[in-house]
Amino acid sequence: MIRHTVMFTPKHQPGSAEEKALLTAARELAKISTVRRFEVLRQVSPKCNHRLGLSMEFDDEQSYDFYNEHADHVAFVNDRWKREVESWQEIDYVVYDD
Amino acid sequence: MIRHTVMFTPKHQPGSAEEKALLTAARELAKISTVRRFEVLRQVSPKCNHRLGLSMEFDDEQSYDFYNEHADHVAFVNDRWKREVESWQEIDYVVYDD
Repeated sequence: MIRHTVMFTPKHQPGSAEEKALLTAARELAKISTVRRFEVLRQVSPKCNHRLGLSMEFDDEQSYDFYNEHADHVAFVNDRWKREVESWQEIDYVVYDD
Repeated sequence: MIRHTVMFTPKHQPGSAEEKALLTAARELAKISTVRRFEVLRQVSPKCNHRLGLSMEFDDEQSYDFYNEHADHVAFVNDRWKREVESWQEIDYVVYDD
């Protein structure tokens, strides 16, 4: 299992219609067939500057690659993410089982 | 539900006995009664500088506070974390359900 997460801050005002539209578009990514446990999240720690997060899981590297290269994901990144997101940090996890 | 996560990099060499001992000590935190879904994680994105992560969930703010103030957590932070961890970033999530 690979958990792909990104914390981010849109250029939009918090709670604005533009922000909600961006999150609605993001939720469409959950329809890509290899995506598991898709979540839209609100970042609530005062020790962190980002306001929002996305989290999803993939069974393996191949499933992650399928998502990354999927036309719907590529279009979302180019048409929405790069234009509407001010800053972000990707964090990917696997279970540490040593 | 509140998901409390921290990504971090210990001062220890990756995979060293010292690092494993730190992670073993961290796993003891899962025994605090309000902790749910405790995970020790390896950060694998090349776009992120941290090497490791912890994730756990709490039912609500009160359960999170109970953990934060618990003597075992306070001792872990003072005796292990502050001495053995080079850098870290806390990220806390709740589900965005607007």
